[in-house]
Amino acid sequence: MTYHLTTTSTIGFNDTIERVKMLLGEEGFSILCDIDVQSKFKEKLNIDFKRYRILGACNPVFAYKALAFDNKVGTMLPCNVVVQEVDNSHIEISAINPVESMRAIDNDDLKGVASEILQRLWNVINRFNN
Amino acid sequence: MTYHLTTTSTIGFNDTIERVKMLLGEEGFSILCDIDVQSKFKEKLNIDFKRYRILGACNPVFAYKALAFDNKVGTMLPCNVVVQEVDNSHIEISAINPVESMRAIDNDDLKGVASEILQRLWNVINRFNN
Repeated sequence: MTYHLTTTSTIGFNDTIERVKMLLGEEGFSILCDIDVQSKFKEKLNIDFKRYRILGACNPVFAYKALAFDNKVGTMLPCNVVVQEVDNSHIEISAINPVESMRAIDNDDLKGVASEILQRLWNVINRFNN
Repeated sequence: MTYHLTTTSTIGFNDTIERVKMLLGEEGFSILCDIDVQSKFKEKLNIDFKRYRILGACNPVFAYKALAFDNKVGTMLPCNVVVQEVDNSHIEISAINPVESMRAIDNDDLKGVASEILQRLWNVINRFNN
């Protein structure tokens, strides 16, 4: 399995962001940060980049469980969902696969929490176009 | 190697945050998000948690290179640095080890960028008490 769960969107960029946020909310995730990569690259590097947003999504119940099992796991939180413009009519949504990104952590309890989070992120990705 | 680079701080919590931010700045990182986990858990779960902050640090030059090699890698950006209170006189600083967290990505160019970022995060951790 790859390290990200990806689907495409055929609605506009901003509508895609709103729908992703709504679906994340339905799975119990709050958005703790929202990074506009296009604007950061313009500001810091004076480079014109495509529209690219990183939404940091956190389900506090699972985050609390995960931190109880390993107090360093905040280095891998929140779970990111990227919305990017691949070309004019093609927008992609990619959620992190926490089971893969946490592969380096040797803790079975944490792997259990990562699997539960993965299922909820899959729901967001699978429901996006349905 | 573990998935995080950790050191301890004996200065106060807020001073630790400021020193981490300064050292990250010297290595070319900007703080793109700053998540107060203690306050989020209070707000969302009504749980009293220790002081725990997640700083999302991004070196735009390396982020731009990484995204050129793999446009989904934003699901693993920015690089987090956690500052947490372990007990009253013991504060820990943990930076993500991007080489370990990106282990699931099969891309040698990206592994090269991850190694360069790892070196800079090591500099922050190693210089914290020196």
